[in-house]
Amino acid sequence: MSLVVVGSVAYDGVETPHGKVERMLGGACTYISLSASYFTKASIVAVVGDDFAGEDVDLLASRGIDLTGLERIPGKTFFWSGVYSADMNDRTTLRTDLNVFADFNPRLPEAYRSQSHLLLGNIQPALQRGVLAQMTGPKLAGGDTMNFWIRDFREELLETIREWDFLLINDSEARMLSGETNLKKAAARIFEMGPQTLVIKRGEYGALLFRPGDCFMVPGYLLETVFDPTGAGDCFAGGFIGYLASKGLGAGDFDREPAELRRAVVYGSVMGSFCCEEFGVDRFRTLTRAEIDARFQEFKATTEF
Amino acid sequence: MSLVVVGSVAYDGVETPHGKVERMLGGACTYISLSASYFTKASIVAVVGDDFAGEDVDLLASRGIDLTGLERIPGKTFFWSGVYSADMNDRTTLRTDLNVFADFNPRLPEAYRSQSHLLLGNIQPALQRGVLAQMTGPKLAGGDTMNFWIRDFREELLETIREWDFLLINDSEARMLSGETNLKKAAARIFEMGPQTLVIKRGEYGALLFRPGDCFMVPGYLLETVFDPTGAGDCFAGGFIGYLASKGLGAGDFDREPAELRRAVVYGSVMGSFCCEEFGVDRFRTLTRAEIDARFQEFKATTEF
Repeated sequence: MSLVVVGSVAYDGVETPHGKVERMLGGACTYISLSASYFTKASIVAVVGDDFAGEDVDLLASRGIDLTGLERIPGKTFFWSGVYSADMNDRTTLRTDLNVFADFNPRLPEAYRSQSHLLLGNIQPALQRGVLAQMTGPKLAGGDTMNFWIRDFREELLETIREWDFLLINDSEARMLSGETNLKKAAARIFEMGPQTLVIKRGEYGALLFRPGDCFMVPGYLLETVFDPTGAGDCFAGGFIGYLASKGLGAGDFDREPAELRRAVVYGSVMGSFCCEEFGVDRFRTLTRAEIDARFQEFKATTEF
Repeated sequence: MSLVVVGSVAYDGVETPHGKVERMLGGACTYISLSASYFTKASIVAVVGDDFAGEDVDLLASRGIDLTGLERIPGKTFFWSGVYSADMNDRTTLRTDLNVFADFNPRLPEAYRSQSHLLLGNIQPALQRGVLAQMTGPKLAGGDTMNFWIRDFREELLETIREWDFLLINDSEARMLSGETNLKKAAARIFEMGPQTLVIKRGEYGALLFRPGDCFMVPGYLLETVFDPTGAGDCFAGGFIGYLASKGLGAGDFDREPAELRRAVVYGSVMGSFCCEEFGVDRFRTLTRAEIDARFQEFKATTEF
């Protein structure tokens, strides 16, 4: 089984209480694919400018990520910078330069179209829909979105997620999309919009998995130090779909394999927690699958009763 | 085994997005003892005024609570009123009339002194210490405190909790007491202060149990509607110590029975969740032990992987 990931590849400037980095590799597609690469073959679709560094290409390639769909065009790579609050639960955007990302129109290489799993990172909903239309029928397709699309592109977003097997968003987005404050009620409303699997990320408080008639709750991993939360949600997504792809599981298997779906959520939490341990993607320069599995077991040991 | 509970018995005025009640039974001691009464015999030490209603005495008595230590003196019962924010995660105090509670000096009836378990609700630290000194040596003693005592009565509080087996506080209190933002680090600091068992309540996000070298995380129960969160933390405390008392477990047993300690935390969460389902103590007018055990099983079913 193999996974297609679509989204931004970017440079980020980040300041947290633990330090400041002016410019480092970032972007949803980067984090998702790095995270997923520990579980399955990942193929990315993204665009970068001619300033994109060879060492960053090398990092992605070193994780076995298929870069056929990484388009390089004249101009600068998407740049974002932001500063985190003291408790790192809030962040303020300082700069967003879309650059070459402004005209991103994802085209899937021929070899990608028949792949089994699709993760649509947070981009314009119509573009997400266009990507799914290029696939020949993945076993599992879904993705992420954000407050901006929910508020200002609602109809387009609803048309897009109607075709998704799963939606993976954070709690404030789930509330905004559904119009319900209560997350159980929010899930019921979102099921009516299409996706029958809803994963709600709650940052340091863990995650919730909803299926019609079923619910799974996993608390957040307690890190001793959170260096930089940038990308943690995307790494969650990568671990979630990467694990499912590694098991060959699609939307049609979830009723039969609810335990595997739960494990995918825990692997998502595990990957999100590792992401926060160093700045940017740095943790993925050294992380091993053995460390991932050890933390999965630690999750089990600290939640069992 | 039996339990002594010390704290406030009060009248509360509460407004939440779901309604408003001008005056209803409340107070930490009330909530703790009602909750614990589903697990063990609870004996309370508290003070009320001559306005304390017979029907409120009857409710406590109907749950088998020993009221020998409920002192009734001339004057008015402690009154508190507050209003909750739209998401009910914040509340603003409108009025605090200490009334007869201002001179509360808990004296334990002779029959209480040799009881096995002691829960000290949130009152002045020196009074909490005085209560423990009246006991002949409980198997398990601990309690709650709040930001006011942590900030303005720090030395007194430290002297008090040094003798406690467990401390049961919320996350912001744990941070304030320890001076650490990170909860793992906060736990390590608090162990140095005396208590070797720390339970941190996180409201809708669940709870954490820390012991030196061990950690347990339980997510919050997802209610469809939270009517009134008043007393939920106290009901957590009641379920926690009530369960341990019912099993005859003291601080010396925790290393040998870590699973029972975890179950106590889950029963605490269960009791806190029921408390929010109706205004004030109303849920305890109908709640049954069978419902409690069913929700405990639901916690298991929704967290297992």
